[in-house]
Amino acid sequence: MSQKIRLGIPKGSLQDATIALFERAGWRIYANGRSYFPTIDDPEIECMLIRAQEMARYVDHGVLDTGLTGIDWVIESGLDVESVTSLVYSKQSRKGVRWVLAVPEDSPYQRAEDLSGKIIATELVEVTKRYFAQKNVPVKVEFSWGATEVKPPTLADAIVEVTETGSSLRANRLRIIETVLESETRLIANRTAYKDEWKKQKIDSLALMLKGAIAAQGQVGLMLNVSKENLPTVLSVLPALNSPTISELSDSKWVAVNTILEESVVRDVIPRLKAAQATGIVEYPLNKVVL
Amino acid sequence: MSQKIRLGIPKGSLQDATIALFERAGWRIYANGRSYFPTIDDPEIECMLIRAQEMARYVDHGVLDTGLTGIDWVIESGLDVESVTSLVYSKQSRKGVRWVLAVPEDSPYQRAEDLSGKIIATELVEVTKRYFAQKNVPVKVEFSWGATEVKPPTLADAIVEVTETGSSLRANRLRIIETVLESETRLIANRTAYKDEWKKQKIDSLALMLKGAIAAQGQVGLMLNVSKENLPTVLSVLPALNSPTISELSDSKWVAVNTILEESVVRDVIPRLKAAQATGIVEYPLNKVVL
Amino acid sequence: MSQKIRLGIPKGSLQDATIALFERAGWRIYANGRSYFPTIDDPEIECMLIRAQEMARYVDHGVLDTGLTGIDWVIESGLDVESVTSLVYSKQSRKGVRWVLAVPEDSPYQRAEDLSGKIIATELVEVTKRYFAQKNVPVKVEFSWGATEVKPPTLADAIVEVTETGSSLRANRLRIIETVLESETRLIANRTAYKDEWKKQKIDSLALMLKGAIAAQGQVGLMLNVSKENLPTVLSVLPALNSPTISELSDSKWVAVNTILEESVVRDVIPRLKAAQATGIVEYPLNKVVL
Amino acid sequence: MSQKIRLGIPKGSLQDATIALFERAGWRIYANGRSYFPTIDDPEIECMLIRAQEMARYVDHGVLDTGLTGIDWVIESGLDVESVTSLVYSKQSRKGVRWVLAVPEDSPYQRAEDLSGKIIATELVEVTKRYFAQKNVPVKVEFSWGATEVKPPTLADAIVEVTETGSSLRANRLRIIETVLESETRLIANRTAYKDEWKKQKIDSLALMLKGAIAAQGQVGLMLNVSKENLPTVLSVLPALNSPTISELSDSKWVAVNTILEESVVRDVIPRLKAAQATGIVEYPLNKVVL
Amino acid sequence: MSQKIRLGIPKGSLQDATIALFERAGWRIYANGRSYFPTIDDPEIECMLIRAQEMARYVDHGVLDTGLTGIDWVIESGLDVESVTSLVYSKQSRKGVRWVLAVPEDSPYQRAEDLSGKIIATELVEVTKRYFAQKNVPVKVEFSWGATEVKPPTLADAIVEVTETGSSLRANRLRIIETVLESETRLIANRTAYKDEWKKQKIDSLALMLKGAIAAQGQVGLMLNVSKENLPTVLSVLPALNSPTISELSDSKWVAVNTILEESVVRDVIPRLKAAQATGIVEYPLNKVVL
Amino acid sequence: MSQKIRLGIPKGSLQDATIALFERAGWRIYANGRSYFPTIDDPEIECMLIRAQEMARYVDHGVLDTGLTGIDWVIESGLDVESVTSLVYSKQSRKGVRWVLAVPEDSPYQRAEDLSGKIIATELVEVTKRYFAQKNVPVKVEFSWGATEVKPPTLADAIVEVTETGSSLRANRLRIIETVLESETRLIANRTAYKDEWKKQKIDSLALMLKGAIAAQGQVGLMLNVSKENLPTVLSVLPALNSPTISELSDSKWVAVNTILEESVVRDVIPRLKAAQATGIVEYPLNKVVL
Repeated sequence: MSQKIRLGIPKGSLQDATIALFERAGWRIYANGRSYFPTIDDPEIECMLIRAQEMARYVDHGVLDTGLTGIDWVIESGLDVESVTSLVYSKQSRKGVRWVLAVPEDSPYQRAEDLSGKIIATELVEVTKRYFAQKNVPVKVEFSWGATEVKPPTLADAIVEVTETGSSLRANRLRIIETVLESETRLIANRTAYKDEWKKQKIDSLALMLKGAIAAQGQVGLMLNVSKENLPTVLSVLPALNSPTISELSDSKWVAVNTILEESVVRDVIPRLKAAQATGIVEYPLNKVVL
Repeated sequence: MSQKIRLGIPKGSLQDATIALFERAGWRIYANGRSYFPTIDDPEIECMLIRAQEMARYVDHGVLDTGLTGIDWVIESGLDVESVTSLVYSKQSRKGVRWVLAVPEDSPYQRAEDLSGKIIATELVEVTKRYFAQKNVPVKVEFSWGATEVKPPTLADAIVEVTETGSSLRANRLRIIETVLESETRLIANRTAYKDEWKKQKIDSLALMLKGAIAAQGQVGLMLNVSKENLPTVLSVLPALNSPTISELSDSKWVAVNTILEESVVRDVIPRLKAAQATGIVEYPLNKVVL
Repeated sequence: MSQKIRLGIPKGSLQDATIALFERAGWRIYANGRSYFPTIDDPEIECMLIRAQEMARYVDHGVLDTGLTGIDWVIESGLDVESVTSLVYSKQSRKGVRWVLAVPEDSPYQRAEDLSGKIIATELVEVTKRYFAQKNVPVKVEFSWGATEVKPPTLADAIVEVTETGSSLRANRLRIIETVLESETRLIANRTAYKDEWKKQKIDSLALMLKGAIAAQGQVGLMLNVSKENLPTVLSVLPALNSPTISELSDSKWVAVNTILEESVVRDVIPRLKAAQATGIVEYPLNKVVL
Repeated sequence: MSQKIRLGIPKGSLQDATIALFERAGWRIYANGRSYFPTIDDPEIECMLIRAQEMARYVDHGVLDTGLTGIDWVIESGLDVESVTSLVYSKQSRKGVRWVLAVPEDSPYQRAEDLSGKIIATELVEVTKRYFAQKNVPVKVEFSWGATEVKPPTLADAIVEVTETGSSLRANRLRIIETVLESETRLIANRTAYKDEWKKQKIDSLALMLKGAIAAQGQVGLMLNVSKENLPTVLSVLPALNSPTISELSDSKWVAVNTILEESVVRDVIPRLKAAQATGIVEYPLNKVVL
Repeated sequence: MSQKIRLGIPKGSLQDATIALFERAGWRIYANGRSYFPTIDDPEIECMLIRAQEMARYVDHGVLDTGLTGIDWVIESGLDVESVTSLVYSKQSRKGVRWVLAVPEDSPYQRAEDLSGKIIATELVEVTKRYFAQKNVPVKVEFSWGATEVKPPTLADAIVEVTETGSSLRANRLRIIETVLESETRLIANRTAYKDEWKKQKIDSLALMLKGAIAAQGQVGLMLNVSKENLPTVLSVLPALNSPTISELSDSKWVAVNTILEESVVRDVIPRLKAAQATGIVEYPLNKVVL
Repeated sequence: MSQKIRLGIPKGSLQDATIALFERAGWRIYANGRSYFPTIDDPEIECMLIRAQEMARYVDHGVLDTGLTGIDWVIESGLDVESVTSLVYSKQSRKGVRWVLAVPEDSPYQRAEDLSGKIIATELVEVTKRYFAQKNVPVKVEFSWGATEVKPPTLADAIVEVTETGSSLRANRLRIIETVLESETRLIANRTAYKDEWKKQKIDSLALMLKGAIAAQGQVGLMLNVSKENLPTVLSVLPALNSPTISELSDSKWVAVNTILEESVVRDVIPRLKAAQATGIVEYPLNKVVL
């Protein structure tokens, strides 16, 4: 029988983004309605939809060889799994999310220490307990089934909640006072599976392609022509990060420059390239970037 | 300041049905997008959306005076709250839901006792633990964040899951072996609040009207004319439950009969009424029924 | 084993309206996604979704005992089935639909006879062939897979197409020249099944309740009070069709009048009742009417 | 040729509610996609969709005989049309809307007089100009094409804007300082048309039925049985507004009581009726109420 | 007058995919709501929406010069048209669809020969009749108006139905026993029109561009830099199919490699290119590929 | 404090297209539900949603430094603002829109002069008044709140209305007789702000990138290989507009050609390139083009 890895895809809010990421990376995953066993166009992989909160549990048990989940839920689980690579692919933001301690805007609390004896509502119960225990602050941590941010001040005194931009907290008139945990998506693996040579290579290829697809999303290709005379000025305008490919043209006084840029700097770079006499400036989209 | 009761509405799958029920009962609740504090057209009530799982907790703490939730989550919480009345208003089914112990279709398990040493996945952890403890069957109960029915046999050996018709379990090739808990929606109240005379009266009126609206959903009004001669036959066809209202007509040989019927029997009753010479048979809808 | 009738529900454009009609008549049919075997809350009935065009075929073969379909497709099939009752329940229109012969607006054709030797596109091939054959007009009838009304003049010279209001034909610049067949929905039954006493009674009850629900859609209840003095004038205003129920009131100078009216005449009747000194005029909705 | 009235239906936010109101009143209006000439099932009426702001203009010109619009736009137009009846049918609120003068929450303005020399943005330019002119306060009134409530303080100093509950203004941190105009929906008519006897009768019947349908929305029917002994208590519980219909029953010790109630009081009345020994209390919906 | 070709676009399930394909090929087709004559941004083409089943008929008659349809419907029609090129553009699958003979899972039938005297339901009546006639197996072939796969065993003994993956057949508990016909989308042309030089050139250009767009969907561009030393290893990793473009860089020890790859192999190739010391590996999307 | 420009985004029908254009140009604008102050990922810009009709007013007042709007509304306002660049980005059409004078299809009017004394309905009141005044044709211009094209002949004799293709006018049976104003989208700026050096540079960069993104939408990249022998033929096929980039290949008999083409000519060019012996012809998409 042919070898296979069993891969956990996070069910829920990250599911569609994850499937889209795999498609860009080169794998098509078909989620068939209510089935939790999506098909994938690679005979060496078997997929399963698992809640992010439970991913570490099943990777640890060895039911899954590898899976995507947030490092927050890995830590919450207290389990020992291999962290293969970080994968930050949320469209909204390039930054990881964080779990913060938040209190009512108009409350007097300024630090964790001010919450002694209070009720803290959160989905991340274990991490929160450890956080307050390390500070020797006794609190009552209550598991919250959702809508945590509307609980203070009626149903809880403070919360530990996940946020990217803080806007949902502000909308609920909450004030962030401390960061409890920074998180991000990770590809994790079962420690035993990752020692198997074939599985390790397969998981590493997966990681390479997923990172290549993520890198491509924030980058673009830029081509331009420039006379050799103006080449130094043009090169000085381009970010130093990746060295551009410079090729000879039939007209020997000119060269073609082809490079990869962060999409976010293009709006500043193009006006300066034009000022540096570059011509035929063309930006084109990329599918994958592996430098 | 005027008196008020604080009322918890279950957030999530029951939310729309609950708001519709209140509208039929005589209260309009406006859920404003993402707000958890819907407005209600009764100055004596303040609403809050709360997950069914957490309702008992906050009614017990006295943050809420009353609320709707499943008796399953009340029992799971282990808290002591007043159960005012049962409210079964799911459109799909008149019967309550139940939590069942289910195993893979082709597994050998026939009774709870066969699961000694196995992993049981469930959202209802405490009830499940007590259930197996009473039977002296040692099992490992794991909290499931959702999609419990797809876990056997890979991720768990058996599950305790909620079901109405069993169809989702069957679709996942699971077999029900025991019923762990029967549940239904309840109006619960804080014990202290329910001792306050004004609050008790308000909560009881609420219960009366909600039950009146629920009763009306499964019943219809039926009017017909019949000659006094044929009246006994007509009455014998009508279910004995509620005595019909019989009024005199101007034409003294005839009477009008007006009654309330279970909607589900109408399709059998009308053909027999017609056979019994009733004329002008008219079925009309009801908003509320308080017998 | 308990007795059952097998019932065909028309799949497609009439499906939702049919299921809604059965609900008003007292039967809930649950169409589960893609399944062609909807469940029904009556253990004496088994449902199957069948295209209207094929209903007569399967009722004739005896695979179904009864079914709803258009009389047009019954005639097209050329098969011999029992026509139990007509059921006109389209919301848009109380009138039956009809198949018409239509030609391009600016063509010279005025009668079927003008189309000798031409191409006629239609979904109703057999009826159309017979129609022209009876008139001794030789034409080429081509089966049309849909979008028949856009075919003239490029793809056909004329069409035989179904229409309610003619608006789709006009929008395609077609002119109706003759009516080929008037149609309407029918409850049909297999001749052998309809001779079985139990099945006949079940099918007849079904017909009675479906007609009762249809009748209720176009009718409303009207209640009013009037002094005995003004009663004759009030009665003269009410349509003579159904005799109203007149009941004695406690105040012996007044009577209450309760009647059923076509909804479409209410807007004319109420102003005249008010002019006739009726008071407390109340119109209420009906679920079923069996006179 | 038969007589007709031409009727203007307000295009836009009121359109669906208006068509629904006409349906309840007894007229079906079919708005066909993009057409501005909906069909209506009454050969004596021709419909046209017209913006509420332009209704008075076209009724005044005589292009329309009658139409529905807000009294605010009638006054804004400065034209002389007949006001046949008021029609308040918004589901959200029974109260009319009003145009208010609003300023930034944290601005110093307390009265219209404080706005001398300032810019006022509004869609209701003429009414606003007259309002300030009457107070001898010179301001610059600018026509606003929409989104008026976001203009202060950047784009205007104050606004005159329509509001029902004030919530949109509060959400934009505006403070209401004066009410400029209270409005409500009206059926208006061309003065000349309204002098034509046939047209007047048609328009009046329309008004009667529209009001009957509106009245029915906020009211319900209530039936109950009560012993003659308890009748006085029951009657004392019922609102005095409309005298209930009391009919004799076959059992001469009991009577049936049938009445019309404001829906909003039912939730208070039913518990008291039950306390007064009424039995078989049934609430049913109404289509129209013409008392 | 300028020359034109008349082009048939398949109406229905393939319509949106066809319009999208033409857009990628360089032609924008605007389907205006219900019109069957979409506009196209090429004055030399006139479009018409035609059901795939009827395409061959109208191309054969000469009403259309060319059109897209399945080869199955061409064969079913029995007509003689030019097959210009095959066009496989379904997103779901690169493989053509096929018509299969399927029987109930638990029936005894293993071959077409086992169905002697049975009822076969199908939309492809003529092909099916010929198929059984060639095998000298007498069967009754009934035209199915849809939902063919639910007919066995109640309404038919076997079916001939179209399938890509067989999943719908399996879901209906059917077993495939033979393949009756393999199909795929074709660009067909009227034989006379295809002999006209101008029309032939136009149709051939259309075919070239459609195929170029289809080819691009499954392929991507890949650019990388590599030292001349490592070039042979890199080239050995690339599929031999298309020779890559190798260009000189300013730094004469390095070359740039630019090539076209099947998208499905990229996930295997990139890890090996990286192992072969390639740098700056970039994958970019393609619109059209004409090799 | 850092410098900023205030930018007006047109609210309404152009809003989504504008935000999409900015995204392609390199700026992400987040429109948060009902807020009129979308956020943008550039700390040097502040956005505000403003109706196109009011843009010139607020740019003129200096509340905004720059904004996008139609030149028609700039002219209608009569205000003096800087026109930085034209931006034609509607997907439907590359051509600007125009305001036309239209009359009923079957009316006798042929020229503006024929409308003396008539009523003209329009949203563009001032431009229309000036247009007729210049021709010395006295007309009554009435402001239309929308649905202008359905007003003739009942509510107006003629209209001045905006159109791209004329299809909405034809659908309403109107005939265009004159063009009153041609329009297009413009980036406008406040004259004072545009004299500030920093603001001018920022606005000009914005204009450059927006135009680069617009240019890319209608263009594509084309790569091919060709032997030096065939290069002249290939070059003669390519449009002369932009000189292609020709680079040396390792195989010195061949060159690679890379160029930018109007997407609309590709379907004609590729067949001719293939005829000219070009190989490996690849079309790829572009994000931005700055020549």
